[in-house]
Amino acid sequence: MPGEFTMTRRVQFAETDLAGVLHFSNYYRYMEELEHAFWRSLGESVVFGDGDGTVSWPRVATSCEYAAPVHFEDELELSLVLTKIGSKSVTYEIAFRRGSDRIAVGEMTAVCCMMSGGRFASSAIPDGIRAKLEGFAAG
Amino acid sequence: MPGEFTMTRRVQFAETDLAGVLHFSNYYRYMEELEHAFWRSLGESVVFGDGDGTVSWPRVATSCEYAAPVHFEDELELSLVLTKIGSKSVTYEIAFRRGSDRIAVGEMTAVCCMMSGGRFASSAIPDGIRAKLEGFAAG
Amino acid sequence: MPGEFTMTRRVQFAETDLAGVLHFSNYYRYMEELEHAFWRSLGESVVFGDGDGTVSWPRVATSCEYAAPVHFEDELELSLVLTKIGSKSVTYEIAFRRGSDRIAVGEMTAVCCMMSGGRFASSAIPDGIRAKLEGFAAG
Amino acid sequence: MPGEFTMTRRVQFAETDLAGVLHFSNYYRYMEELEHAFWRSLGESVVFGDGDGTVSWPRVATSCEYAAPVHFEDELELSLVLTKIGSKSVTYEIAFRRGSDRIAVGEMTAVCCMMSGGRFASSAIPDGIRAKLEGFAAG
Repeated sequence: MPGEFTMTRRVQFAETDLAGVLHFSNYYRYMEELEHAFWRSLGESVVFGDGDGTVSWPRVATSCEYAAPVHFEDELELSLVLTKIGSKSVTYEIAFRRGSDRIAVGEMTAVCCMMSGGRFASSAIPDGIRAKLEGFAAG
Repeated sequence: MPGEFTMTRRVQFAETDLAGVLHFSNYYRYMEELEHAFWRSLGESVVFGDGDGTVSWPRVATSCEYAAPVHFEDELELSLVLTKIGSKSVTYEIAFRRGSDRIAVGEMTAVCCMMSGGRFASSAIPDGIRAKLEGFAAG
Repeated sequence: MPGEFTMTRRVQFAETDLAGVLHFSNYYRYMEELEHAFWRSLGESVVFGDGDGTVSWPRVATSCEYAAPVHFEDELELSLVLTKIGSKSVTYEIAFRRGSDRIAVGEMTAVCCMMSGGRFASSAIPDGIRAKLEGFAAG
Repeated sequence: MPGEFTMTRRVQFAETDLAGVLHFSNYYRYMEELEHAFWRSLGESVVFGDGDGTVSWPRVATSCEYAAPVHFEDELELSLVLTKIGSKSVTYEIAFRRGSDRIAVGEMTAVCCMMSGGRFASSAIPDGIRAKLEGFAAG
């Protein structure tokens, strides 16, 4: 059974808008918080030095579909699965649930990059990282 | 030739992250700022009263593809076209350019809704609004 | 000994800026998250209905002094004390610590208001709320 | 007569909260946008290289007093004056107006720093920068 990483996240006041709901852009911030907690659960950080420089994972594509509005102080369950591990990239699918309701689903594709001064160069996923990702995906 | 609405937007410091680039979630805020400026250009607001209540346009789907990083103080040109006008929804495509480089492209689908207390009920696009949208789309 | 409410908060990636640190505006969001968790600890919410309408606590003054930079994934301890309970307002002092280092200290004064459609009217703090605040402050 | 730098800023949807007003933390982002536009008006950037490294201006103290709520699509006039130029720091006072109403006033003290990897070391304001600041302050 494939690995799934979950966390809960409470909606904060500053994340709502005048319509009284979680602003749609903040779903992307929640996805990223989940991704970074996932990295920590592997004993890694999304930003790390590997001797040759600093490695991180900028996004090349993100998307989200919204099924129901979310309100201040709602407690959401976020869950992440890895849907693809490429030579240089990973794709995550993230589900947002409130109780038994699936309220949104998102996707992010991030590319392993050496970064320096706001510039990025894509790079093969280091072997040690790949092994951890594959181990997680295998469940 | 289809209508296109454009604006420029300078990248602000608080919108960057430790990688030295515009955070990927902020592209969605730029898309929305462009959409709302578009509504103003039609003599409307994205939030309005129509006698029966307050109407707004929550999103049901958003996405973005990122081609190149963007930095503090970069001045971007954002342009919006309407790719679909449904009975209750509209779909926008938004291009991000820096000079002659296309750096990102996004899409948003928003649904016309009566809103009250953080709840939404989808609703046919009012005729007057539809006429303006179709006029714009026709160029 | 006066009451103190504490929580931990990890610095998220989107909250940093190109200088590699927690953006100074986000300290204010942390203060508010702490305040709202404090309200929940009292069995209340910062936004509530009291029969006559919706009550909330807009700010009239906020400030922060910053002693040291804070970085991605740092885990901060935030603590709140009530330094004043007026007839219509409360003042909080919030300390930010990382381990044994005090890295910032902030203050917020919020006024009890009836709110409707983005308008506020100040109002005496309801007796039940006042009793809880005084009980907390007394420790 | 002392120099004053002004800009207009329209309140965006994502900057509002469920109370229907500009979130109090975003006043600080507006102050910073004004400050950075001020730097550009001097032909400088708030982040610059001076041969020895990168210089920027982290804050040591910020504050704001709020007189009236601000709403979506309001157009604010922001104005900045320099109230102190120290050996290593500057203090700005920023007024927020909507038409003839003063709706908020803020203050920021920023320190000239060499920055590297999220660490800062305070540094005397370079002579060329100081001359520009003093020229502006003199009006």
